[in-house]
Amino acid sequence: MNTFETISGRFSYRGAYQNAPVPREHLKMILQAGLDAPSGCNKQTTSLIAVDDPAILSQLSSIINATTAKTCTAMICVLTQRIIAYEDRTFNIQDYSAAIENMLLAIHDLGYASCWYEGRATGPDKIGYRMQQVLGVPEDYELVCFLPIGIPAGPVKRVDKKAFEDRAWFNGFGKTE
Amino acid sequence: MNTFETISGRFSYRGAYQNAPVPREHLKMILQAGLDAPSGCNKQTTSLIAVDDPAILSQLSSIINATTAKTCTAMICVLTQRIIAYEDRTFNIQDYSAAIENMLLAIHDLGYASCWYEGRATGPDKIGYRMQQVLGVPEDYELVCFLPIGIPAGPVKRVDKKAFEDRAWFNGFGKTE
Repeated sequence: MNTFETISGRFSYRGAYQNAPVPREHLKMILQAGLDAPSGCNKQTTSLIAVDDPAILSQLSSIINATTAKTCTAMICVLTQRIIAYEDRTFNIQDYSAAIENMLLAIHDLGYASCWYEGRATGPDKIGYRMQQVLGVPEDYELVCFLPIGIPAGPVKRVDKKAFEDRAWFNGFGKTE
Repeated sequence: MNTFETISGRFSYRGAYQNAPVPREHLKMILQAGLDAPSGCNKQTTSLIAVDDPAILSQLSSIINATTAKTCTAMICVLTQRIIAYEDRTFNIQDYSAAIENMLLAIHDLGYASCWYEGRATGPDKIGYRMQQVLGVPEDYELVCFLPIGIPAGPVKRVDKKAFEDRAWFNGFGKTE
């Protein structure tokens, strides 16, 4: 798929998945897309774990309790480290967000659908922390997001957004020319 | 270009640009790619200003003082609003980071080069705030990043990164199979 088609055609999916495996070759392409994202001062603060073992997926989905997690045949867990880029500044949120967006594009390009689950992972239920324990992730990493992957069993709906001219301008705030 | 070529071929560029304009059609494609990024709870916290007026570019570059800014023929300024997604949570950093990554991919796909300038914009010199005043941006928005755009006059260098197996694993932390 070409870049612009992929970017404009990607939407979040929160429904059930078909029971079809995601080949390792595809998972590697998705992970590589994540690693290819830029990072502040090239600190590479993002690490990734792809899960395709049904037993581990089952353990994770019992923690998460979402239709996508219960039916997906693969999932990517996003880990971050709060590494200082310079002085007192860290860009780890920016780093993992760019990596996630690259992976969402890769997932869509390969014919799968996903959703950026971050609020749930890092909310008061500490779901990300509990997932982290299943996966043996050390304490200096934080599991901040998971991306279920699979072929959607239902329709992927477009989300409504504001008009272009309400969010994008030329040469000054609110200027449409 | 196909999605994976674009993702793997994009690198930051900090050198001089050729004196060649960036057509409005291309700027609109780049802006649209930014708006197409997902946002937490679809709050659409990111807004964008493309600058291609030489007089305004000159005002901005006098604040920024970087080779890219002094020689680029277009620039995108990224604005964010700290809108609550739910309870006390905001995802505006994630939102604008995903939008920036989409725009960097679009920029590369169209044959230009750029760099994610955020630390400079939001550092102690308040460069983003001063740029914001030139562009008439209200106080409830924050200019957090600018992306110079142009055809590079010099080589775009690949950055060295850690090996795949040092950052991406399968079914558990550090597991390479």
